[in-house]
Amino acid sequence: MIEDKNQERTSLSELGEFGLIDHLTKHFEIKQESTIKSIGDDAAVLNFENKNVVVTTDLLVEGVHFDLSYMPLKHLGYKAVMVNLSDVYAMNASATQITVSIAVSNRFSLEALEELYSGIETAARLYNIDVVGGDTTSSNTGLLISVTAFGVLKKDKAVYRSGAKPNDLLVVTGDLGGAYMGLQVLEREKEVYKVNPNNQPDLQPYTYIVERQLKPEARKDIVKLFDHLDIKPTAMIDISDGLSSEILHICKQSNVGCDLYENKIPLDPQVISVCEEFNIDSTTVALNGGEDYELLFTISQDDYPKIKANPNFTVIGFMTEQEKGVHLVTRADTKIALKAQGWKNFNA
Amino acid sequence: MIEDKNQERTSLSELGEFGLIDHLTKHFEIKQESTIKSIGDDAAVLNFENKNVVVTTDLLVEGVHFDLSYMPLKHLGYKAVMVNLSDVYAMNASATQITVSIAVSNRFSLEALEELYSGIETAARLYNIDVVGGDTTSSNTGLLISVTAFGVLKKDKAVYRSGAKPNDLLVVTGDLGGAYMGLQVLEREKEVYKVNPNNQPDLQPYTYIVERQLKPEARKDIVKLFDHLDIKPTAMIDISDGLSSEILHICKQSNVGCDLYENKIPLDPQVISVCEEFNIDSTTVALNGGEDYELLFTISQDDYPKIKANPNFTVIGFMTEQEKGVHLVTRADTKIALKAQGWKNFNA
Repeated sequence: MIEDKNQERTSLSELGEFGLIDHLTKHFEIKQESTIKSIGDDAAVLNFENKNVVVTTDLLVEGVHFDLSYMPLKHLGYKAVMVNLSDVYAMNASATQITVSIAVSNRFSLEALEELYSGIETAARLYNIDVVGGDTTSSNTGLLISVTAFGVLKKDKAVYRSGAKPNDLLVVTGDLGGAYMGLQVLEREKEVYKVNPNNQPDLQPYTYIVERQLKPEARKDIVKLFDHLDIKPTAMIDISDGLSSEILHICKQSNVGCDLYENKIPLDPQVISVCEEFNIDSTTVALNGGEDYELLFTISQDDYPKIKANPNFTVIGFMTEQEKGVHLVTRADTKIALKAQGWKNFNA
Repeated sequence: MIEDKNQERTSLSELGEFGLIDHLTKHFEIKQESTIKSIGDDAAVLNFENKNVVVTTDLLVEGVHFDLSYMPLKHLGYKAVMVNLSDVYAMNASATQITVSIAVSNRFSLEALEELYSGIETAARLYNIDVVGGDTTSSNTGLLISVTAFGVLKKDKAVYRSGAKPNDLLVVTGDLGGAYMGLQVLEREKEVYKVNPNNQPDLQPYTYIVERQLKPEARKDIVKLFDHLDIKPTAMIDISDGLSSEILHICKQSNVGCDLYENKIPLDPQVISVCEEFNIDSTTVALNGGEDYELLFTISQDDYPKIKANPNFTVIGFMTEQEKGVHLVTRADTKIALKAQGWKNFNA
């Protein structure tokens, strides 16, 4: 918790831009055949042969998307990669390369950036992707990370948000709400720390949900599993903003409605118990919490036997005609219209 | 000069993220055959057939790379695209797509972002590229723009920084130092304005250099010209940090030395006269000014007849054995070692 102020500090101005990029990326290995030329020229050169390429990009801003008082820089680097890979997998593609740009203030030392890049390098190694470019510049305030990710897929394999059909099943991977409740725990401990800096937090009872917040994993395994099970979802999206918002995206772009069953939403026991501790409704958390980076997809009912009893998947509803609207069917068997919670960053 | 405070203002919080992206990109047309799916899903889908792909990315940060008190937002959008396309052309590639992400504080209205995106749209239209993705988020302070650009080239056509050979000619496009002197004029007028806001600056005598600073053009035409003239440079880089720094990059990566002739460096008459007005040495400006976005390249002497007398090109020196070092040969015929000016942003 909270930055160690006594760590070794090498000022960034001692290196200059070129020294910095060379230094931060010198351990990065190139593994993808499609990477012909990586960092060190005006641009990287890639060869995707005859495959289609997916491209996605995300910005993470200090004070908006992360708080360094409880987010270790190494985890932040890892998470910045995961957020982008998750979008690649949500297209049913294999991730191959990323570029990483950072804007950083003088407040950060070289050692701090090495921590950040060690998280990026770990993510790249575990997910078998190449870091092929980036930019490093100064900022007047905090830290900002911009990642662009690339992936490849065969020409007929892309899964859009727009392909869901009435009667398709709505399926989610993993469980929901953990990342949001992890954030609540971390925010509470930060307040405790502010009051008494000698009070070291005991995060032991919250290990799972804190890890869901600080070190999420993108579902690379699911894209492989689809291939293995011979399933092509009709529509897919990753859960970054919350289940509710993502269902509405699929419904809007596919021109369908949806019935989502409250009692089917997968929740980890730790999420349930921490929701009770915080006196928050766990369904609300799963619907609106976000940052779970699970995949939400629809499949034809004909494919149901292929996913039945697979612990990675939970069927949570089905798609309907558009006129029927988008609803949550509660445990009490009443229907409530699902609403987007919108994007609150600009209201902050 | 200086923002108009009375312009129409729609608060960003009125739209939310999805409304904002839709709104800002709704006029953007898709023209490239290689763009299969653009903005609106988890990722864009591109099909580059059997060509190689180049990828480059740059961050522009308010207060570091631009000053909105004299940089109109429309020009800023245009320039953010040019900076990246310039890197694509420096690989000898054709630019095809970009993604644009912005982090923006509440200080900016929707109308301000529309201005920014109209500059991006103009650049995309004139340079025939598609805007295929991006992210829009809030920041706690100013404006930050992250652009990633894509281009394609045939498999044997990539030109790296590393291919220069001793006796190759060193050639530059256009003229140098204009963007830096334009910045000096704008900075001076800003100080005048601060003292007396009623004093409207007369920029008429500085039109060329101010435009070099505010609205640079990437040299798309040169890549076409190489194709037409059947020239493949042995090495190439774009001039973003200054001639001196770029020559040193080529020499380092190609393991060669260089003799650069001071009297051959192309300068616009306006640059020369404004350098006199500011009492700055014009060679120093050309060597270290940066932001000219011209192309610097080396060619085999056998190719000299193909570029001779072409007004786009100036031969400014030749490459030597690495042991001979990198030198400026002055008008007085003395040799001075060229030094990198380094990257000063972190010292600010």
